[in-house]
Order: sequence, then C-alpha cells, then structure tokens
Amino acid sequence: MGSYCFGIDVGGTTVKCGLFLTDGTLVEKWEIPTRTENQGEAILPDVADTINAKIAEKGIAKEAVKGVGIGVPGPVNGKGEVLCAVNLFWGFTPAAKILSELTGLPAMAGNDANVAALGETWKGAAEGSKDVIMVTLGTGVGGGIIINGKIISGHHGAGGEIGHAAMNHQETEACNCGNKGCLEQYTSATGIVRVALQELASGSEDSVLRAVEKVTAKDVLDAYKAGDAVAERIMEKVGDTLGGALAVFSCVVDPETIVIGGGVSKAGQPLIDCIRKYYEKYAFSPCKDTPIVTAKLGNDAGIYGAARLVLQDA
Amino acid sequence: MGSYCFGIDVGGTTVKCGLFLTDGTLVEKWEIPTRTENQGEAILPDVADTINAKIAEKGIAKEAVKGVGIGVPGPVNGKGEVLCAVNLFWGFTPAAKILSELTGLPAMAGNDANVAALGETWKGAAEGSKDVIMVTLGTGVGGGIIINGKIISGHHGAGGEIGHAAMNHQETEACNCGNKGCLEQYTSATGIVRVALQELASGSEDSVLRAVEKVTAKDVLDAYKAGDAVAERIMEKVGDTLGGALAVFSCVVDPETIVIGGGVSKAGQPLIDCIRKYYEKYAFSPCKDTPIVTAKLGNDAGIYGAARLVLQDA
Repeated sequence: MGSYCFGIDVGGTTVKCGLFLTDGTLVEKWEIPTRTENQGEAILPDVADTINAKIAEKGIAKEAVKGVGIGVPGPVNGKGEVLCAVNLFWGFTPAAKILSELTGLPAMAGNDANVAALGETWKGAAEGSKDVIMVTLGTGVGGGIIINGKIISGHHGAGGEIGHAAMNHQETEACNCGNKGCLEQYTSATGIVRVALQELASGSEDSVLRAVEKVTAKDVLDAYKAGDAVAERIMEKVGDTLGGALAVFSCVVDPETIVIGGGVSKAGQPLIDCIRKYYEKYAFSPCKDTPIVTAKLGNDAGIYGAARLVLQDA
Repeated sequence: MGSYCFGIDVGGTTVKCGLFLTDGTLVEKWEIPTRTENQGEAILPDVADTINAKIAEKGIAKEAVKGVGIGVPGPVNGKGEVLCAVNLFWGFTPAAKILSELTGLPAMAGNDANVAALGETWKGAAEGSKDVIMVTLGTGVGGGIIINGKIISGHHGAGGEIGHAAMNHQETEACNCGNKGCLEQYTSATGIVRVALQELASGSEDSVLRAVEKVTAKDVLDAYKAGDAVAERIMEKVGDTLGGALAVFSCVVDPETIVIGGGVSKAGQPLIDCIRKYYEKYAFSPCKDTPIVTAKLGNDAGIYGAARLVLQDA
C-alpha cells in the first residue's frame, strides 16, 4: 500500500500536477505545458515523464506510490477510456491504460469537471458529504455528480453534463452543442453576458453596464452587488434558471451538498443567495434546505479529485 | 449463504409477498391485507408472521434464507429507515431493523418506486443494464434511479422523486406537494386527464373524448391510438413534458436504459414513440439514442426489487 499518489489535471494549455500523501495532503504542485501538436500524442508521455522525474527527485520508492489519477476535458467512461477530447485533439484514447503502462503505476482517468467535483467532495467545499452535485460556471457550464463518494460517469460518459440540460424549450438561439435552451446558454460566463445584452437591448433604463464597452460576467456581477437595477434583473433571470435547474437535479439524486464552482463563483455569497432564492422556490419540499456553497479549491480541485480517483475501490 | 430470499411490497391496501431463489426465480407469491389501523402498527408484525409461516410451510431451514427486503410507500434513507409513510399512517419507522428483529433474518428497506426500478433492472425491462432511470406513471408519478445496480436513495430519501421535478415555471395550479409545475401534474394518469380537460375546454373541435362522461387517461390514450386529433394534441403535450424531463435527467446520470412503468405505460409503443420524439429533440447529443422501454414486471416489480435489496453488498 503506497503512501503517495499523483493527481493530474490536463487542460488545453497546461497540465497541472500534484504529488499528494494518501491522506490528501498536497506535498507539491507544478505545471507542465500541454503539447497538443500531432493529435496530442506527447501529452501522456510528458505526464509520465514528469511523474517519473518527481519520484526520482524526491527519492520516493515506486512501491510507496499508490497510483496516478488524471482528469481530461472530454467524456470518459468507467474504464478510464477517453471517448474524445476536442481541446487535446484526441480521439478515443484509453488514457488510464496508457498512463499505467508508461509509469508502471496503477492509473485511473475521469472527466475534468467530474474529477473537480470529486476533489471538492474529498477536501473542499463539500468535505464530509457523500452525495454532491457540483456545477462549474466558466466559459461553459460543467458539472459532476458524486454519489456515495464516487463519480457518476454515465453510460456514454455524459454523467454530470448538466450544462446541456435543456431548461428553456422556447429558446431560439443554438447552444454550442447544437441544442437550444441549454443551462449553459444562461449561466456560463458567456451565457450571463448573453442574458445581459438581451436585457440591456430590451429597454433604455440607466445602468452602469451601458458605459462598459465589452460587458463581461464580472461586470454584471459587480453591478449586481452595487445594486444596479438592470444588473439585478439580469441576475434574477440567471438565478431563476440555475436555481430551477438545480431543483430538478435534486429530485433525481437528492444530494447532501450543492457546490458552485468556476470563475463565475468568485462572485461569492450574493450569487449564492440569488441561486438559493429560486432553488428554494422550485425544489421538492424534502430538498429545500440542501446547502448551496461556493467551491473552495479553485484551480486545484482537479488535481485533488484526480488523486482521489486512485484511492477508491473500483 | 442462504439460497432463498423474500421480497415484500407494502401498499395501502395489500402487502404483496414473494419467496424467491437467490438467482431471481420467483417460487411463490401471495398477498396479505395491509392493516393500517393504530398508525399501522400491525403491518410489520403481519409481514414477519407471513414470512415465518411460509418458511415453516415450505420446510425451509432458516439459515437457507439470505434475508428479506421490503418496499414502502414513503421516503427511506440508506439505513432502511422510513421517514414517513402517509398511506400506512407511519411516522419515522426503522423498518429494516424492526423486520430483522421480528424475523431473525437480515432485512433491508427501500422506497417502493425505487425498489420497483431495482426489480425492473434485475429481472425486467432493463435486465443487463447497470444504470437505469425508471419513471412510474400511475395516479402520481414515481421514479427510481439505479446506478451500478443500486438504488440512489438520496440524502433526504428523495432520490428518484422525479414526479416532483418542477418542469413548468408558468403553471398556476398547485401539485399535491404544494409546488407548481411538477412533472406529475402533466404525466400521471390524473395529470393526463387534467391536460385533456384543458385542451377540450380550449376549443370545440370534434373529439371522441367529448362523448365520454368522465374522461380517464385510458380514454385519452385509446383516442390517441385511434387517431383522434384532439387526443393527439393532448399526448403531444404530455410527450413534450415527459420527453423533455427525461432529457434533463439524462444529463445528470446518463443512464443505459430508461424504463416507463405504471398503469399509463399499458398504452405501450404509441406512448413510448410519443415520449421518444421529444426525448430525442431535447437530449444532449451523446444520450439521444438511450433506449426507452416499457416495464415488464407489472405489479411484481416491487417484490422482485425488494428481494434484490437483500442480495446486494452494502
């Protein structure tokens, strides 16, 4: 039984790496570039090299390493096979198997948003909870469902793909996925801007946002916190959509804790309050008091969750 | 290791009982009345008595019985504790513990709709699938989520309570649960009738339904199958709501199979086709081909699922 493990989080430009003790203590973290040329063929060998180098540098015996977990931006099935990862230029890639062969260590792989949810459940905002829904509000909307401390990968690797829940059947604009009315179209950073521009165009009421050349989600949230009336209407729409969606998801898995992560979540408690107002309105009565909290681990959630992957029984 | 087990399904008027081999073969099934007087205090003792009598009648050695599983109409937590069961007049009842004490056998308890989903996953319409969503269209709408062959009970025992997913925020009439716009209000037997009466009242177009004194869901579905234009509009609304809800649920857990059960599901393939049309419209692309099938076990799903409960590892 090893007393160390590695958690790897592969992004489109950098690979975040963490050496952990198996109790979850982060010993050291570092980054390497993500080399996406030639269909990203160097990515897994680069990861293996940096792991082997770290083991050598620290003078750790190989048998003291329990394994390596890796989070990847794409659908991953329960066998640790990546079905595709557009930003890495990967097609089908049995990432866990390859990484295990390259390192001589047990390896596991998961979808990056799922893995981040696992990290927040293990050592972050939902520490101590067994059943967790995490929604990540970034450029898009990702998510992860943790049940009994484990990721729900789903039959097509689409477990936790809550950004693509079709919440508005009246929507006329298409989401990046091709459908219309996805949660992501209203509650991602770009979605919030989309809602904001629609709201600004629908009237002429004074707003600090009218003076901003290129409105960002942060501008909207700052204006909301400052009491701008138009920003309030924008965020009520965002909160209604997200709170309503979370209420539906709660009927499915009834989590112990709901975690809001991603760049948008930096807005903190005012955002949470806005989501909570509508969550409570729409949630099934036994689930109305489910805590909604902001993520704690920031960009480290992925390496924590990846490390956790290899510490679980199958 | 026993080679028999019991599956018990407690309803408001009768308790269905099944003696099974642990391979899932149903040896015998029978019913006893549900005695709800005095806060239903006799129900679990009656169940224990009928089990003990059956063991004696069959000359089965007690050690040849692996245990007894019981499904109850109310929220049940992961410890087999019933939080309440309105139709049985039960408050908090540690059903598994009580039943184990009364029978001297290992016992497990689960929510009846969840347990039916487990039964259909074990030996019914979703046999061979590990991840399943079942929706039961009866007087109300129940449901069960099975992940890796096990029930998702949820933190408040509300896992799979998909009948109370708020799908229509514009609804003005209240659901029995107190919220507005629940899936149940449109897709249960009573919900279909509600949608039908609204549609009939909204115009004066000819329909066979206008000659029916008290329209039932079966009347609507029969008229739909016969090509009645008003019934078609009614069922398009029902299919849109249910298909749309299932598409959202699929983004959460990405099941291998979706099972439609309950009395309404007797309408068969035309109902499935109507749901599937809208499911495919709204589902996230990797999940669009997920099979939607009708339940197979009918009223026996509960006893099968209850028996399965005691054959699983914790």
